[in-house]
This record gives sequence, C-alpha cells and structure tokens, in this order.
Amino acid sequence: METKTISSLFGRVRLARPLVHHITNFVTVNDCANVTLCAGASPVMAEAPEEVAEMAGMADALVLNIGTLSADQVEAMLLAGRAANDFGRPVVLDPVGAGATRFRTETVVRLLEALEIAVLKGNAGEIGTLAGVGAEVRGVDSVGVTGDPGEICCALAERLGCVVAMSGAVDVVSDGGRIAYIENGHPLMGRVSGTGCMASSVTGAFSAVSDDRFEGTVAALALFGIAGERAGLKAKGPASFRFKLMDALASLEPEDLAREARIRLA
Amino acid sequence: METKTISSLFGRVRLARPLVHHITNFVTVNDCANVTLCAGASPVMAEAPEEVAEMAGMADALVLNIGTLSADQVEAMLLAGRAANDFGRPVVLDPVGAGATRFRTETVVRLLEALEIAVLKGNAGEIGTLAGVGAEVRGVDSVGVTGDPGEICCALAERLGCVVAMSGAVDVVSDGGRIAYIENGHPLMGRVSGTGCMASSVTGAFSAVSDDRFEGTVAALALFGIAGERAGLKAKGPASFRFKLMDALASLEPEDLAREARIRLA
Amino acid sequence: METKTISSLFGRVRLARPLVHHITNFVTVNDCANVTLCAGASPVMAEAPEEVAEMAGMADALVLNIGTLSADQVEAMLLAGRAANDFGRPVVLDPVGAGATRFRTETVVRLLEALEIAVLKGNAGEIGTLAGVGAEVRGVDSVGVTGDPGEICCALAERLGCVVAMSGAVDVVSDGGRIAYIENGHPLMGRVSGTGCMASSVTGAFSAVSDDRFEGTVAALALFGIAGERAGLKAKGPASFRFKLMDALASLEPEDLAREARIRLA
Repeated sequence: METKTISSLFGRVRLARPLVHHITNFVTVNDCANVTLCAGASPVMAEAPEEVAEMAGMADALVLNIGTLSADQVEAMLLAGRAANDFGRPVVLDPVGAGATRFRTETVVRLLEALEIAVLKGNAGEIGTLAGVGAEVRGVDSVGVTGDPGEICCALAERLGCVVAMSGAVDVVSDGGRIAYIENGHPLMGRVSGTGCMASSVTGAFSAVSDDRFEGTVAALALFGIAGERAGLKAKGPASFRFKLMDALASLEPEDLAREARIRLA
Repeated sequence: METKTISSLFGRVRLARPLVHHITNFVTVNDCANVTLCAGASPVMAEAPEEVAEMAGMADALVLNIGTLSADQVEAMLLAGRAANDFGRPVVLDPVGAGATRFRTETVVRLLEALEIAVLKGNAGEIGTLAGVGAEVRGVDSVGVTGDPGEICCALAERLGCVVAMSGAVDVVSDGGRIAYIENGHPLMGRVSGTGCMASSVTGAFSAVSDDRFEGTVAALALFGIAGERAGLKAKGPASFRFKLMDALASLEPEDLAREARIRLA
Repeated sequence: METKTISSLFGRVRLARPLVHHITNFVTVNDCANVTLCAGASPVMAEAPEEVAEMAGMADALVLNIGTLSADQVEAMLLAGRAANDFGRPVVLDPVGAGATRFRTETVVRLLEALEIAVLKGNAGEIGTLAGVGAEVRGVDSVGVTGDPGEICCALAERLGCVVAMSGAVDVVSDGGRIAYIENGHPLMGRVSGTGCMASSVTGAFSAVSDDRFEGTVAALALFGIAGERAGLKAKGPASFRFKLMDALASLEPEDLAREARIRLA
C-alpha cells in the first residue's frame, strides 16, 4: 500500500467532511464526537427508533459500539444498520466487551449475522473471542489471546467477509487476503478510557471515503496512532495526553500521515 | 442596551447561583454541567418521570436540549416544562437537529405548542427550519439558511411570542421587536462538539436572573463569545480550546463583560 | 491508622488493578472511568439487565451512583448489588441528590435495605438527610447540615452497619466506632462537576483491596484530596484543574500518599 494512497484518503476526509452516525456507549460518546471533528468529519449521535433509520440514510458512515449496550439500543443498531446497508453506507462495528458477558458476545454475533459489516474493530480479547481462539476479556479490557494476531484477523476476515482490525501496541488489519501491521501509537493510549472507541470513529470517517475499506482502516489507525505519538511527546499524564491527542489529530495534514505512518504489509 | 445592564445581569448570576435544571443530550451533558458551574450557576440533570417535575419546581430555570432525544425523554421534557411554567421559571429550548429528521422537527413543534418557551436558541439551519424559510440541516450541523438572519429571528420570535436566538459567526437575538447582533466568538467554537449546547446552558443561567429575557440572552451569548475569544488566543487546537474556554468563563468578571461585549442593536 | 497502612493499600490497587463495575450517572461517567484508570484500577460500566449480574460477578467492586437515576437503572442496581453481595464484593453507594427529591431519597433507602452496602459516601446534605438530621440539598448540591459531622457519620454508620463518608472541605469517615477527618483537598474541587462521583470511584478501587473498609475509604479520599492539592498548584481554572487532577492522580506513588496524607483520628 503506497503512502500516497493513505494521505489521499485523509485529504478526502478533510474535503468531504463525511457525516458519521454513531450509536455508541454513553461513557466515551463525547470523545467520539470530538475526535470525529478533529479528524475532519462531522459526528451525529441518534438512536431513537423514530429517527435512527432516517439519520443513517442521511449519513456517510455508521459506527456501532456496544460499550454500554441495552436491548433497545441493539434494536436501534439493527434499524440503523439495515438503513445504512440499503444506502450502501459502510458500517463499522466495535464489539466492546465481547467475551466478557454472554449478552455482549451474542449481540455481536447477531449484528454480524443481520448486517453487512464493513469493518470489525476490537482489542485482542474481543477479536480472539469472535474468532473462536483462546481469548480472555475482563470488563472491557483484553487480557490476552492465543495465536498469531495476523493469522487470527485474516481468518476471521475471510470467514466474515469484512475487514477485521485488532488494536494493540501494534494494530493489525486484514481483509482476508492482505494483512497490515501499524506500528504507530503510544503507551498512554492504553491508560485513557475510550481510545479504542475513538479509533473506531476515525475508522468510520475514513471508511466513508474509501472504496477499499482495508486501505481506509489502515489509514485511519495510522493517523490515530500518529496523533498519539505526537501527544505522547508532551503529555504529563493520561488526561493531558487525551486533549493533546485531539489537538494533534486536528493539526495533522495528509503529508504528515504519508511521512510518519509506519505500516508493514504481510 | 447598555453595557451596565448586561454586566449587572452577570453579577446577579454569580450572586444568586441559580439552579439550572437540564434535560439534555448524553453527548455534551458533562460540558453543559461544567459550563454552568463556570458561569457561576449550579447545574442539575434529572429526567426520570418520578422526579422531573419536582426538580423543575426546585430549579430557577429549565434547559431542554433534544440532541439525543427519545420518546421517554420528550415526555420528561413535557412534565418538567409544565412544572417550570407553573412556577414561572424560564424554559430555554435548544432544537438540536431540527430539520434533519422528522422526529426532531415534530418534537420541537410539539414542545413549542405545549409549553411556554422563554428562549428558543439554535443554529441557522434549525431556526430557519422552524421559521419555515429555506434551511438545511445535516446531522446536527447547519448547512445554511435562506434570507436575512435578523428578519428570520424577529418574525419567528413574534410568531412564537418568545426570544429567538440564532447562533453563528455572529449570533442574532430577537424578541420580535428588538434585534441584537453579537459579534463575540472564535472560529474554534465551531470545531468543538457542544459549544451550542453550552451556550444554551449559559442562557438558562442568565434567563433565571433576567426580567427581560431578550437582555438575558444577549448577555449570555456575549459572555460565552468573550470566553471563546480569550480561549482562542492561547489554544493549540480544539481540545485545549475547550478547557481554556471553560477556564476563561470562570475567570471573567462583570466588568470584563461590559468592556469586551460587541453588541449591535437594530 | 498508620500511614504505612494507607500507602500499602494504594500499592495493592496499583498491583491488582481491580475491576470496578459502575452503574452511575451519564453526566460524569467518563470522568469516573478515567479517574479509575488514573488510580490504577480498571473501570467497566454495564447496566443492561441481561448482563449486569454477570459483570458484577466478574468485577472486584461495584459503585452505585444515583446522579441521573431511572426506574430501570434502580432495578439494574439491585440485580448487580445482589450479585456483588453473593460474591462478597464490596458495594459503594453514592446517594447523589438524596434529600432533593422524594425519588432519590426513597431509592437510597431502598438500596440500603435490599443490599449490603460497604461504603455510603455523599455530601453533607445527602448524608444529613439519610441520618435524619436537619439537612438541605438543592439539586445535587449540599446547602448544609445541622450538627457535628463526625457524630452524624458515626451514628449513621452504626445504624446502617457500614462505613459512612461525608465529603466536604474536610472529609469525614466513620465505621460507627472510629472517626477519621481527612484534610486533603482543594477549593477548586467544588467548582468541577463530578469530583464527588470521582472520589466514589476511587473509593470503589480501594474497597476492592481492603479488608478493613474504613481504612480503604480513608486512604481513597486522602489520595484523591492530594491529587486535588497538586492540581490546584498549577490550574488556571476549573477545567484545567480537572485534567491536572487526573494527571496528578496517575503520577502519585504509595510513598507520596504516606507523606502527604493529613488524617486526624478521633
């Protein structure tokens, strides 16, 4: 994948300002909104059954995040997801806490069966759980996964017919054929609530402008990782890191992404 | 309107610390709470049908914001709004996303019919939609409005019998007779999620201490804009702008408002 | 109580990284998550009836906070609380706004009757209301309480058979026998939304590793107060205070807690 490709995708986000509809958790929802804006896109949150399909039809991408799921919210995700599918809009699914409780794992399976998901993006424990390999999730934290991350993502992507991304110190992305390893990032990202959710929002923005969702996901995660690296240089702790990450994201330009991305393809 | 009037209203907010009851969206609710505190008032959020009228009766003002509305929340808004009306407390309505979906537009119409609204405050697309002029809203963003903002606000204020405020690079406020243009503000306000919601919270605080709601709304928006200007001088991006705006708001004094407000009356 | 004890408890939090399950309000939930991480523990928020007991069983402590309670959420609290009780996990209850509305006061009474609460932690008005002494709460703010805080906490703790903590300029903690006064803290803590909620989250983390919940609560509140003192040295207002408080909390070490804690025992 050429660096020209990923910087050009970022340029398209900034130009098109895609509207990214979120149905997400109430813990990190504000961070998702602000990160979407900092990336150059426009966020909207809506989940009432009266309007959720209409909003999904107006939006350029849909991000589903089950961080604080409820039965009603899952119904809203299905309504919005079907509308997004009907309109050909990409749907990004963040399976927060899959593997921790039955309700979360079963909900993700249900969403994957009912909807055409463009990108499934979770941590190692969540992706490992869905891949059916040895994996452990405690609350919403990954405890670990057994096996090679690249192979797990590739096999799951092939089975599901979508892009699969596993976040971690090195992010892994696969579409069932190609595998990319993104080495950008900073340890403080693991010490702030919601960096995974924020990365999914950025992925939603990029998926809206990408014909090739594998490239879009790789570009989004590299960009978010670079913002983290820049923030990490000056942060005095997790909370100053968080606002510096957002400021860095807003200040990054397509040529920065081309220059600073550290992506290995396998 | 004399600068003495608006600075004196700010002094009253600081002295009386009005309790501002919010029924608002879950995206920017924390910012609304903190901005209310920074302005010098006291926030409370409550929307359970079991308590919402009791809380509204205890509060000095009520702010209704439909940013993530649900059918249950609309019922809570009606219960709280009627209680606030019965006790003679001002109700501020922020019609977030009116014009984007039918549910939002119809809910605002319903609230305007059922309740006595003191101040209706939205962006150009939302106010234009409610005024019935050409207007477009995408998600929760204004795409644009056709016509003169002052005339639109004035005509809508006259028809509804309340104060109407349209936020933008220049904020416009009218009570159907007077029209004020508030030139305070900073471009970064448009790059942070929820600055519109925060401005509505400050408007709620001022409406609690204002006999003349037109003056209260003008004072609130000038104050919020000045806080934005001060924050903009030192911010390194949208996220540092956000906390600096809150710090600036907390540090402003009535005499600062009198000196720095840029208000034109028409 | 020896300073060695409280610093050793903090060391245990950092080592064990207890999972702290929250059912809390949607205003300050993000702050609770991030403060839990900064203290060294791991937060999870879950309240769907389908999973709440399973999550509580997996967690090391449960924090219940009624800041924006609903009937459904109260049922979730009962389900989670019973599971936590069955598994011997401590439950911390923050009775936000008890005394302001009947629904809040009655809900707290119901939770105290149905569940074994380890620590009840509120402001003076809330604790005074539950103690049945003269107390006033306006929204979620304490207006005041009649009587001696130490005696009120001690009598209530004895009656309820749990630890009672009353936050304020000086925090008071009692288990019905011992009374501790914690003098750490900073005036800006009262000007940020949710510092009380955050202190309850830290208390949850400490209660998970403390055999003696009185000691755990005292240690948690001293730690949080010290973080506030450090943040207060450099903050330029309430919003920069908030992120500096989190950064300070993350940077504190057990020996700092031992050295800077100002605890008086009565």
